[in-house]
Amino acid sequence: MVLEKDDRLILLTNDDGLYAAGLKTLLEVMEEFGKVVLVSTMESQSGMSQALTVKTPLRVKLLEENEKHRIYACNGTPTDSVKLAVNQLLERIPDYVAAGINHGANASVSVLYSGTMAAAIEGCLYGISSVGFSLNSFSPTADFSVCKEYIRIVMKKMALKPLPAGVCLNVNIPAVKSDEVKGIKICRQSKGNWKEEFEKRKDPMGKTYYWLSGFFQNHEPEAEDTDEWALRNNYVSVVPVTVDMTAHWYLEELKEKFNK
Amino acid sequence: MVLEKDDRLILLTNDDGLYAAGLKTLLEVMEEFGKVVLVSTMESQSGMSQALTVKTPLRVKLLEENEKHRIYACNGTPTDSVKLAVNQLLERIPDYVAAGINHGANASVSVLYSGTMAAAIEGCLYGISSVGFSLNSFSPTADFSVCKEYIRIVMKKMALKPLPAGVCLNVNIPAVKSDEVKGIKICRQSKGNWKEEFEKRKDPMGKTYYWLSGFFQNHEPEAEDTDEWALRNNYVSVVPVTVDMTAHWYLEELKEKFNK
Repeated sequence: MVLEKDDRLILLTNDDGLYAAGLKTLLEVMEEFGKVVLVSTMESQSGMSQALTVKTPLRVKLLEENEKHRIYACNGTPTDSVKLAVNQLLERIPDYVAAGINHGANASVSVLYSGTMAAAIEGCLYGISSVGFSLNSFSPTADFSVCKEYIRIVMKKMALKPLPAGVCLNVNIPAVKSDEVKGIKICRQSKGNWKEEFEKRKDPMGKTYYWLSGFFQNHEPEAEDTDEWALRNNYVSVVPVTVDMTAHWYLEELKEKFNK
Repeated sequence: MVLEKDDRLILLTNDDGLYAAGLKTLLEVMEEFGKVVLVSTMESQSGMSQALTVKTPLRVKLLEENEKHRIYACNGTPTDSVKLAVNQLLERIPDYVAAGINHGANASVSVLYSGTMAAAIEGCLYGISSVGFSLNSFSPTADFSVCKEYIRIVMKKMALKPLPAGVCLNVNIPAVKSDEVKGIKICRQSKGNWKEEFEKRKDPMGKTYYWLSGFFQNHEPEAEDTDEWALRNNYVSVVPVTVDMTAHWYLEELKEKFNK
């Protein structure tokens, strides 16, 4: 069944907080597709991964309500926001969960750390068609308008036929002018990791502290089927992300290893 | 090359904090296998997933140093602890990262939320043979001694031949007497999700707040090749976990979807 706009309920969230430019852009586009309920974290929650708030109570505030949308702020993580929305705030299970637009790419192993992608994964765990969008720019003046066209395409594709159970989409958009984007590329997650990750400093009391820092190292820069390659070459990368972390291909070998 | 005990450097961490009984048990067993450096979070960080501390400085305190081990406390998440250890505290890249023993199982989709498994995944991203151990009990008086024998077996298997790149192990141990454990079962992650996840309450000011709560629902209780089945049937479950979240099996279908 293909849902009409008036029938669609879309849950929106992000990890850059309520006043992030990317969230505003995503809200504008999503209102073209259905009724939107936005549950955002009050502050930035970048790098929070799938973290849950278990030690402190969660609070939610309804900030705005009109024909097109309801907007809530939540004091938890992006994953908390999705859980609270689905369990407590929404009138029914939404048809889509959309997260972002993240300020900065979530390609390669960043999917493991990203609060934005965690929100999409959380939606996916509820059996909802879910997607995270990110723009490949950390510039405070980044222009998110290039994303609109590609968000529309992805949403239309998802509307035609739902994603399989346990799969959501990780969409990264290059931060270039619209006419420089070469199109959409379906990719796999690139292999890579982070390097030289801390700055060691002294506080005014002479005590040592560390700031997280460092840079991403792509282990396969030549691999044209990866999200990192696509982004670097001005494609929009779309990676199907599974919630099943089992290394299925290694099961038999591991059984042999333990049977010896 | 098979390393001898004196050559092995093992990084230990957990997400239940420095005074957790499971950590003490894991330290005891690991000292049989090599020199141990333990970097624990100061407080419990359950459900923190792969979260990174990006907005506040990290601090580390050396608490104890002897021939067998060094013990540090860190104010960050389990993932921060591994990153800090590898980048700043260890004399070299360790041969193993071991996390746990978690107080409570991390089977099925709990792998996505678990700080313990995040620490193992973080080790894996550095190319280190990594494993997370969990005991299937939340009881404050849980007896972790049943774990020792199985930790030894897993460590010996990992010592014989390293895990493939990008794969770590998720080991869950049933909370029963040693002679009731039926053995080790290599498994895949069971499909499931969490239900009715919040308690809605009023604070003394009359304002609403929510506590995370709920219960796990296994979607395939009859599937004998899953970790949930193994645990429920008194097996130690060992799941090979991949850091590659791409749904490879869906790539071609997704390409077709976007080419139409």
